[in-house]
Amino acid sequence: MLTARTKLSRLPKRGSHDTTTIYPILDQGLVCHVSYVLNGQPFTIPTAYCRIDDTVYIHGSVGSHFFRELAKGIDVCVSVTMIDGLVLARSAFSHSVNYRSVVAFGKTQLVADEEERWLALERITEHLVPGRWADVRQPNTSEMKKTMVIAIPIEEASAKIRTGGVNDDPEDIDLPHWAGVVPLSTTYHAPIPDPNLREGVEVPGYLLK
Amino acid sequence: MLTARTKLSRLPKRGSHDTTTIYPILDQGLVCHVSYVLNGQPFTIPTAYCRIDDTVYIHGSVGSHFFRELAKGIDVCVSVTMIDGLVLARSAFSHSVNYRSVVAFGKTQLVADEEERWLALERITEHLVPGRWADVRQPNTSEMKKTMVIAIPIEEASAKIRTGGVNDDPEDIDLPHWAGVVPLSTTYHAPIPDPNLREGVEVPGYLLK
Repeated sequence: MLTARTKLSRLPKRGSHDTTTIYPILDQGLVCHVSYVLNGQPFTIPTAYCRIDDTVYIHGSVGSHFFRELAKGIDVCVSVTMIDGLVLARSAFSHSVNYRSVVAFGKTQLVADEEERWLALERITEHLVPGRWADVRQPNTSEMKKTMVIAIPIEEASAKIRTGGVNDDPEDIDLPHWAGVVPLSTTYHAPIPDPNLREGVEVPGYLLK
Repeated sequence: MLTARTKLSRLPKRGSHDTTTIYPILDQGLVCHVSYVLNGQPFTIPTAYCRIDDTVYIHGSVGSHFFRELAKGIDVCVSVTMIDGLVLARSAFSHSVNYRSVVAFGKTQLVADEEERWLALERITEHLVPGRWADVRQPNTSEMKKTMVIAIPIEEASAKIRTGGVNDDPEDIDLPHWAGVVPLSTTYHAPIPDPNLREGVEVPGYLLK
């Protein structure tokens, strides 16, 4: 899978081409950024997604300009990034960020098979809220017609991860500046019920974890 | 500023080309995704950044393959996305995400002026941790030589925002599924001091907000 596209030129100790590193990052990210080229110009769109085996799936409206481009079968770069902490060194230069990121490359494919489309939509929902799909009104024929599903089989990918503490130069260690890490995470707050919720409907257990 | 590049084709009610909408999103994002084209292929890199007036600045190592490409003066797309909530409708189809996002387009410029370089580095640090720059050992000549600063004057940009609650179809309102919003936010956890911190150095006030 290694070519010039994903060869890690900088800080290779932070990089990996191993699916056991790449897949968990793809599975934990909330949204991905999909980049593509149109008339020689780069474009990026943030969107929900899921991963099934070595394929990333995204979905959108059949009326979307972006999805109509993707339906043509074009090269894309899918990027997923999570920021885990701010690394505050004694020197400005040694400041860093703890993160997990993946860039994956592949060519888009319009998914026509109804079973594959359905599975992708189920997994995209489950990716955001595990347990949700079985607890909603599932798509009807009209909604399926309005929805485009795009598969991106991953041809190449690389992960980059930084974890741990501050790496100041030895000569800076005794400077009188505070140094350390500020951990960051995404917080899921208490669910806010829709005002028109049918009486007696409780918050489902999968939202209370 | 309006061209086909940023014209909002879908859900234009969610879109804006107004700098009073775009700048706060750029100022609140933690990292951006920078996309560019190399040999006809799209590439994306997540990176820290700052905005000064209508220019986005990023920095990297002079040894970075990515930054050496940017130094040539190429078209890029800068994307900043924040996810504010999961919108859980009664129907799978009406599920959505509350978010704020900006895509901005411009051509990269290698910054040579030392004053502009210094200001950009200060602002990139301040963007992540306001108050930090004045409290660290600032860059020396050798560190400045190792650092590349790239300016991306924004030629065009658009923002997209979704806020609010569930938009189920009227005929779905009485279905027995829970519906509502799960708000998301980034939590800054308690700072973890470096084990080699000089004795008596307290956590600075700007980290305790």
